[in-house]
Amino acid sequence: MGKIKCVISYDGTSFSGFQIQPKKRTVHGELEKALKKIHKGEHIRLQASGRTDTGVHAKGQTIHFDTPFDIPEENWKRALNTLLPDDLYVREVEKVIDSFHVRYDVLEKEYRYYIWNEKERDVFKQNYAYQFPFQLDIEAIQEACNHLEGEHDFTTFSSAKATTKGSKVRTLYQVSCVKRGSEIEFIFRGSGFLYNMVRIIVGAMLDVGQGRRHQDDMVKLLEQKDRQLLGETVPPQGLYLWNVKYK
Amino acid sequence: MGKIKCVISYDGTSFSGFQIQPKKRTVHGELEKALKKIHKGEHIRLQASGRTDTGVHAKGQTIHFDTPFDIPEENWKRALNTLLPDDLYVREVEKVIDSFHVRYDVLEKEYRYYIWNEKERDVFKQNYAYQFPFQLDIEAIQEACNHLEGEHDFTTFSSAKATTKGSKVRTLYQVSCVKRGSEIEFIFRGSGFLYNMVRIIVGAMLDVGQGRRHQDDMVKLLEQKDRQLLGETVPPQGLYLWNVKYK
Repeated sequence: MGKIKCVISYDGTSFSGFQIQPKKRTVHGELEKALKKIHKGEHIRLQASGRTDTGVHAKGQTIHFDTPFDIPEENWKRALNTLLPDDLYVREVEKVIDSFHVRYDVLEKEYRYYIWNEKERDVFKQNYAYQFPFQLDIEAIQEACNHLEGEHDFTTFSSAKATTKGSKVRTLYQVSCVKRGSEIEFIFRGSGFLYNMVRIIVGAMLDVGQGRRHQDDMVKLLEQKDRQLLGETVPPQGLYLWNVKYK
Repeated sequence: MGKIKCVISYDGTSFSGFQIQPKKRTVHGELEKALKKIHKGEHIRLQASGRTDTGVHAKGQTIHFDTPFDIPEENWKRALNTLLPDDLYVREVEKVIDSFHVRYDVLEKEYRYYIWNEKERDVFKQNYAYQFPFQLDIEAIQEACNHLEGEHDFTTFSSAKATTKGSKVRTLYQVSCVKRGSEIEFIFRGSGFLYNMVRIIVGAMLDVGQGRRHQDDMVKLLEQKDRQLLGETVPPQGLYLWNVKYK
C-alpha cells in the first residue's frame, strides 16, 4: 500500500507521444497495461511530470501511481521492466509519501535538444537529432541563450496551441549551447516550460545562428509577449526530457 | 550508359535484411524500387558486396548497377536519396569501368560490433548495440583477438547454415577490441568473411571475457575445423558492415 514514483526513459520514435489515446501506442498506455497486469486486471491511474509529443524522447521522465500492494522497490522495477516493451524502461522506483505529486512538486525540469549539423544525412541519427545542413554562428547563439536565462514571461516562446490559462512566467536556470564535432547540444533547465517552448526557442536560435535575427532581439521578443512573432518549431526527434528534480 | 557504384548506409532496424524477398521490406527491395522509378519502370538489376541479415546495419555497404542513362554522379546521388526512405542513404556515387564487380573485386571488408556493457538497459541503444550485463576481462579478449589475425581456415567460426562450398580460408588483417566507458568496440578487417563469422567470433570472445574459455583456446579451435565447437552467435543489432575497399 502506498505511492510509487518511477523514473522512466523511452525512445519516442515508435510512440504516439506520452498521453493515452484510443488505438494509439502511447507511453501512458503501455505503462497502464503493465500496471493492470501486475494488479490482476485492476485499473491503476498514473500521473506524469508532463506530457511529451510524438517522437520526443525521455531520459528521465517521472511518473507516480497509488497501489494497494506492498512490494520492495527492486521488485517493482523488475516486474514493470519484464512487462514493458523494449523502448520503454523503468530506471528507478521509489516509495514516496502520500502527499507527493509528480507534477505539482517539480522543482526543476531539464530538456535537451540535439542538432546534427551536417550536410550529409546520417541514418543512425534521423530519429535522435534534427539534421540541420547550414552553417551556424555558435557564439551568437550562445549570447542569445544568455538573454533567456532568468525569470521572464515566455508568451512569445509558447505555442499558439497552448491551453495553459495561467501565468506564462517561468524561470530558466540554464540555457546553453555547445558544439562538439557535428553535434550541437542545447541544455534547458527551468522551473517549468510552456507547451512547445523548447522547440520554439531552438527555432529562434537557428535564426540567430544563420544571422536572420540578431542575438539581442531576444530581449525585445520577450518584452513583446506576442506569440505571432515566433512559432516556427524545430522537429520533435531532437528533443529529450532529460531530468526532473524534486525537493 | 555505364556502370554505377554506390556506397550506401542503412539503419537495419526496420529492414528484413538486405536480400530481396517477396512482401518483406528489404534494402535490396527499396533500392530496386528507387532505380525502377528513375528508369521509368524498367527493372534494373543490382549487385551488393554481400548480404546483411535482419537488424544488421551498414555504414558503408557497396552496390553496383548498369544503367542506360548518362547522368552526372551528384545527380544520381540526389535522385536516389530523394526516392529512398529515411533509413537508407546513398553516401557516394561513382562511375566505374564495365569490368568492375562490387563482390568479386573486394580487397578488404571491415565489420564492427558494438557491445553495451551495462546492467541497466538503455532504450536508445537497444537497436544499435548488444547489451551485455556481465563483467568482461578485456585484456583476455584482446589476446584472443590477436590469435585470429592472419590467414586461417575459419570453419570453426562459420555458421552451420553456411552454404559456401568453397574454401573456408580467410585472412584477417585486424581483429581488435577496445572498451570506452560502457561501450566495447570490436573491429574486424579481412579479405572476406564467412556467413555469421563475425557474430560467432564475438560470441567466443564473450566466453573468453567471462573466463569460460581461455584466450589461447583460439589456436586449437582454429585447428579443429569443427563447426559444432562453437555456434553461439551474438544478436544482429550490434553488427555494422563498416567499409568495403577496392583496388
